[in-house]
Amino acid sequence: MKELELQKAFMLIEPGPVTMIATSHKGKYNIMTVTWTMVMDFTPRFALLTGPWNYSCEALLKTKECVIGIATADLVETILDVGTTTGRDVDKFGRFGLTPLPASEVRAPLIKECYANIECRVVDYIKKHNIFVLDGVKAWINKSHKDKRILHARGDGTFIADGEIFKRRKRMGDKLPPGV
Amino acid sequence: MKELELQKAFMLIEPGPVTMIATSHKGKYNIMTVTWTMVMDFTPRFALLTGPWNYSCEALLKTKECVIGIATADLVETILDVGTTTGRDVDKFGRFGLTPLPASEVRAPLIKECYANIECRVVDYIKKHNIFVLDGVKAWINKSHKDKRILHARGDGTFIADGEIFKRRKRMGDKLPPGV
Repeated sequence: MKELELQKAFMLIEPGPVTMIATSHKGKYNIMTVTWTMVMDFTPRFALLTGPWNYSCEALLKTKECVIGIATADLVETILDVGTTTGRDVDKFGRFGLTPLPASEVRAPLIKECYANIECRVVDYIKKHNIFVLDGVKAWINKSHKDKRILHARGDGTFIADGEIFKRRKRMGDKLPPGV
Repeated sequence: MKELELQKAFMLIEPGPVTMIATSHKGKYNIMTVTWTMVMDFTPRFALLTGPWNYSCEALLKTKECVIGIATADLVETILDVGTTTGRDVDKFGRFGLTPLPASEVRAPLIKECYANIECRVVDYIKKHNIFVLDGVKAWINKSHKDKRILHARGDGTFIADGEIFKRRKRMGDKLPPGV
């Protein structure tokens, strides 16, 4: 994992990837699969929707930290393993062959098997709507990751990998944020 | 456009598409391109991030209605046309060859050229974070739309269409919401 310029980190969430959210709480690592995320600002700031029905919610509220791991097509079975079990019963890192790596700014671990990771601090929780507001504080990318196709969920058990690329940089003109 | 069961409408936003948001305000239709959206519930409920810097914000606040149009790969030039101009100066429907169709539950128009449209009511606005909370009230899909590959933005002027599909319905078990 090499450091990724923080002003580029929003580009990891903008396309709507399946993510794995890693936390560290009460001496235990945990992971959940989340597809309900949104970019809120280029700074970068992100929204993540989860609530008390989810075991990781307490870790987010108490530690105010997490790592967002970006899932690629090679991880399709892993995101299902992680998403259909609960950290209440299962050590998901151990059970599913995932490797926690030390992060730089937060206690939550990076996920070695992910294409990229974003260390985040919880800066707000909109309780009424179960929205966590996260500020990205450090980002990492593994440019030698073999399969860089980001994975998207359809919600019916179908997942879709990135396909054809359209480069329209010039058309964006001054709408592009600095540093991307 | 045929009606899509409302419980399936979240599936249009879950994969992280580029969207075009149509509004009707002061006797004028307008559209903006938005990639910062998120599913909030299967009901369906959606988050959309925009603020006073955007011309459509006033229409959303005043009319409390909009239509979310889903962009597919064939619309890559259109979402750039719509996203790099402002409704303050331009009649985007007329200028960019888009066709407004009457919606059923809201005054904002459906966009005929989109693969799918979701009629929405604004049910909350989280001013502190510029998040509009939208309830989908009716959904439409054009199943004869030629190019059904949803378009995703990367944030640097690169857009990516849906590629390989992974069907993992059985693996989801009881995690699937009813009716999808």
